[in-house]
Amino acid sequence: MESIPTPALIIDSATVDRNLERMAVYADSHEFDVRPHAKTHKSKQFGAAQIAAGAVGLTVAKVGEAEVMATVADDLLVAYPTIGRDPANRLAKLARHVTLRVATDSAESAEALAAAARRVSATIGLLVDVDMGLGRTGVQTPGAALKLAQLVDRTAGLRLDGICCYPGHVWGPPGEQQAALVALSNRLGQIVDLWAEHGLEARIISGGSTPTAYQSHWVEDLTEIRPGTYIFNDMNLVHGGFCTLDDCAARVVATVVSTAVPGQFVLDAGSKTLSSDRCVPAPDSGHGYVCEYPEARIAKLSEEHAQVDARDCQRQPKIGEQVTIIPNHICPVVNLQDFVWVRTADGPLEKTPVEARGKVS
Amino acid sequence: MESIPTPALIIDSATVDRNLERMAVYADSHEFDVRPHAKTHKSKQFGAAQIAAGAVGLTVAKVGEAEVMATVADDLLVAYPTIGRDPANRLAKLARHVTLRVATDSAESAEALAAAARRVSATIGLLVDVDMGLGRTGVQTPGAALKLAQLVDRTAGLRLDGICCYPGHVWGPPGEQQAALVALSNRLGQIVDLWAEHGLEARIISGGSTPTAYQSHWVEDLTEIRPGTYIFNDMNLVHGGFCTLDDCAARVVATVVSTAVPGQFVLDAGSKTLSSDRCVPAPDSGHGYVCEYPEARIAKLSEEHAQVDARDCQRQPKIGEQVTIIPNHICPVVNLQDFVWVRTADGPLEKTPVEARGKVS
Repeated sequence: MESIPTPALIIDSATVDRNLERMAVYADSHEFDVRPHAKTHKSKQFGAAQIAAGAVGLTVAKVGEAEVMATVADDLLVAYPTIGRDPANRLAKLARHVTLRVATDSAESAEALAAAARRVSATIGLLVDVDMGLGRTGVQTPGAALKLAQLVDRTAGLRLDGICCYPGHVWGPPGEQQAALVALSNRLGQIVDLWAEHGLEARIISGGSTPTAYQSHWVEDLTEIRPGTYIFNDMNLVHGGFCTLDDCAARVVATVVSTAVPGQFVLDAGSKTLSSDRCVPAPDSGHGYVCEYPEARIAKLSEEHAQVDARDCQRQPKIGEQVTIIPNHICPVVNLQDFVWVRTADGPLEKTPVEARGKVS
Repeated sequence: MESIPTPALIIDSATVDRNLERMAVYADSHEFDVRPHAKTHKSKQFGAAQIAAGAVGLTVAKVGEAEVMATVADDLLVAYPTIGRDPANRLAKLARHVTLRVATDSAESAEALAAAARRVSATIGLLVDVDMGLGRTGVQTPGAALKLAQLVDRTAGLRLDGICCYPGHVWGPPGEQQAALVALSNRLGQIVDLWAEHGLEARIISGGSTPTAYQSHWVEDLTEIRPGTYIFNDMNLVHGGFCTLDDCAARVVATVVSTAVPGQFVLDAGSKTLSSDRCVPAPDSGHGYVCEYPEARIAKLSEEHAQVDARDCQRQPKIGEQVTIIPNHICPVVNLQDFVWVRTADGPLEKTPVEARGKVS
């Protein structure tokens, strides 16, 4: 380990494989398609691994991510309401070479995509984004979902493919999740029925999120799931009860750079490496989990320093010692890296680029 | 504006010039050297502008940043306790071409730098990092400062140059700052006296931070200041009372991508653009200031979305409308960008690379 500069993000290949396999087995047993969200890894290598593990395609948020992932997947969903001519033109160009869908909640977005698609004689598939309680994006009523679906259906350049929802607000123990997902299932059912009454079919009903992934069978009409974080996992999922520490494939190796303040050690991984994201289910748990010092608490981050409270630790690390951190939220951590180091069984660490990092548009 | 993809970080050149000029005038009037911290802009262009405005050199945190900034400044301070052979070797290599100093708080760090410097027949200047109350890094007592200074003084490859401190914890109104800085001045004086008793001189006494910058004259022995954020400013400084909205040179342009949820609009700038950093002096003020909708509150960020509570706004923006955000903390926002757009008087927006972004090591 000492031969790579720290801080460094290390990905354990065997853990990744296990995480992908577990999701594939679940999806198979319930006949769901898996369309992983590439935002977690942002790397061609892992996108290709997801396809190899049976994914029907990949999900992305931004056009720049779609452009990267189109090199490893021929079926992409942009789960984001793109607005304006620039993203529409870039997506239409992609749609000439891969199956491309966009999930959106407005006529403005749909019409810009349609115009761009027509200009290059392409077709873009549309999923109507339906809010299921998160309150972020998505049409609010079955009537609004129908209205947008009808617009898409009659607009040249577009193909009405179905419905997209994101149950990112559904956390908690399995019983609570089940109740929330059954309610969500009923609401989706209303939309599907209303569409059917008007001669429209939702061939794809796309849900997702890692915390709900293994409860997806409670949503009756669902055809595909879009988990993202499951490939690496993180402390959000550990504290939420959705995975164990052993399931966490991505860890930051950091070096102790100062022990000047008694009862504290300082690491060379600050918010520029770990991000400032708090742990959602355990906001007071600090800025990540230090594997070698489980009693330690990463109390404070500045950009380049982690101040670790070690007063409860039985021993204190020395200057120069390396420690391993499981981040609270792995997605922004990956986005902060130009590359990651992949560990394979018995092989050396392989430096792997994060091609889709920083693609804000 | 519509011709650039959003979200985009726009830098107003005239405001930057004014901010640099104001600091230069203050420093001149008190005979301080200015050694701006390049972490805020991470760009060669702005580093060069700071040198042109009279800075004696630049400050950086990481070795990778030093390597970038060595192309525009021949005098660099790494205000970070580098540990281990890799950073030491890289810095020693730089020290053959530029005046290079490192601020550190441990014998381990100093000895690694010395060994690396000797290997390439270079000399690295050392500043002893002294904790003035922030509790992050820095030796804790005058005795410890003396001990490290003596080690540096007798070690080949190193040159004892002085003392470095960072009063990042000194916020608040001018009266409070003055009291804190006078106390800090007394503590520094004790160290200087102790060194003098042992025949050691602190030629450089380096302080800094933008919030304390214009109060630096209360620290008697100070020779240089290291403000970073002052070049762009941000909502931390506005809410802290250290600058006005007009002084904020760096603003994120974002597009309204959804208005599906009543009373809310959603922007295409999430934590991947704005970072998750809260406003330190006003943690409940939301995730930045929306210039066109001052009554709006950026209530929630996810990676690619800002959910803006617009219930108090007199009018609501339309889908596709662009708005301008002043971030809470500009440094991590810059780090998230591959490039920024610089606006000059009457000229077009110039796409400018952020060469030192992402340099975690």
